[in-house]
Amino acid sequence: MNLILLFCEDFIDTFDADSTSPHQARLSGRRLQHIQKVHAASVGDSLTVGLINGNTGKGIIISLDGEACVFNVTLDTAPPPALPVTLLLALPRPKMLRRVLQTITSMGVKKVILMNSYRVEKSFWQSPLLKPEAILEQLVLGLEQAKDTILPEIILAKRFKPFIEDDLPILAANTKKLVAHPSCAFQAPTISTDFTTLGVGPEGGFVNYEIDKFLEAGFNGISLGPRILRVESAIPVLLASLF
Amino acid sequence: MNLILLFCEDFIDTFDADSTSPHQARLSGRRLQHIQKVHAASVGDSLTVGLINGNTGKGIIISLDGEACVFNVTLDTAPPPALPVTLLLALPRPKMLRRVLQTITSMGVKKVILMNSYRVEKSFWQSPLLKPEAILEQLVLGLEQAKDTILPEIILAKRFKPFIEDDLPILAANTKKLVAHPSCAFQAPTISTDFTTLGVGPEGGFVNYEIDKFLEAGFNGISLGPRILRVESAIPVLLASLF
Repeated sequence: MNLILLFCEDFIDTFDADSTSPHQARLSGRRLQHIQKVHAASVGDSLTVGLINGNTGKGIIISLDGEACVFNVTLDTAPPPALPVTLLLALPRPKMLRRVLQTITSMGVKKVILMNSYRVEKSFWQSPLLKPEAILEQLVLGLEQAKDTILPEIILAKRFKPFIEDDLPILAANTKKLVAHPSCAFQAPTISTDFTTLGVGPEGGFVNYEIDKFLEAGFNGISLGPRILRVESAIPVLLASLF
Repeated sequence: MNLILLFCEDFIDTFDADSTSPHQARLSGRRLQHIQKVHAASVGDSLTVGLINGNTGKGIIISLDGEACVFNVTLDTAPPPALPVTLLLALPRPKMLRRVLQTITSMGVKKVILMNSYRVEKSFWQSPLLKPEAILEQLVLGLEQAKDTILPEIILAKRFKPFIEDDLPILAANTKKLVAHPSCAFQAPTISTDFTTLGVGPEGGFVNYEIDKFLEAGFNGISLGPRILRVESAIPVLLASLF
């Protein structure tokens, strides 16, 4: 938690998100524990805070006890810039999904489509981790890690064919279209500032039929070379190689 | 397991690592389970194999039952190239260490110093995950993931000052010296083919005293920008940005 993320309901005075003058926010629960245990903070200390989908700034502690921490909050700094990318990610196994959502959020991706693929096990779609409140929890952790405030949009596309044939052409229109796949025929990614739509397959990769569908939709294949990386490493490598 | 890693003791005929003619290897346990459950392989199938610290190649299954799988093995291909880097990594917390060791190995780092730092909790050094056999287990998983065979060397440096003052000058001699630290004063990493010694701090970063010691030792600071990434994401991003 490198930034304490605030929500509108944390503010105890009349709150106007457009104003930069101090407001009072009252925190308890997980954030209070973090302030006490990790920051070992006390009254008068200034901590980095941010308003969900808003500015970042400073919170000066005006009271702190076992029940709650009250801050005087000033929000005057824009959050870090987003990456110009929409990520199409074959739904990872639940064990990996949590970390992947945090990583993606930390790196500044603002739109993610979790999509089906032949090698995505059907049971993955039943995971309680796909419930909106469970997804939100991971996104908040990712934002707090990266000192960001802007929630990514997460879309579930449970059927491959209608997604790739009907939705993807609209979604990817006027963007650079890339799909990552381990194949020596594909080139390494190169740095660009173009807005990009990037497909990343499941463990074991997209099957040939799926790659063909991406190519038909105007995507170019890229490859990270002979080493096959797990999706949680491949995503940071791809994003660092592209932007 | 994108490659089945073989050890000399797996071979059931006279084994000569320099020869490329087929040898017979007999596997049981974890690798047998993987061959049966994930590959759903049968006699006659050809799987990608590699000899620890040797070549990669093909294994043709000549017998397979609940007890063992016997391969005819041909080893005729060099493993993927290594990254030209020695990584100095502040010892991560045990929960993260396993994944970090796998990631580092998958990406082709061949020398890692797990070092102490002010923000490394003393208890981390007591973790059973630092026992040689526990480290080896993670390295093997990383090699199998990336179709590599060459084990990285993992060195433990439990005392910061003697390491940075006495050992580091010799270790880093004639290499490009970089230390990653979140600071706007430091430049972003740039692609290079130079052999590099790269320092990466713990959660919360190196303290100022430690960064000063790196700078005194001739290191230049690099920064990934305003977003703070967890070490398991920062390492892939740094390696992808440097090589």
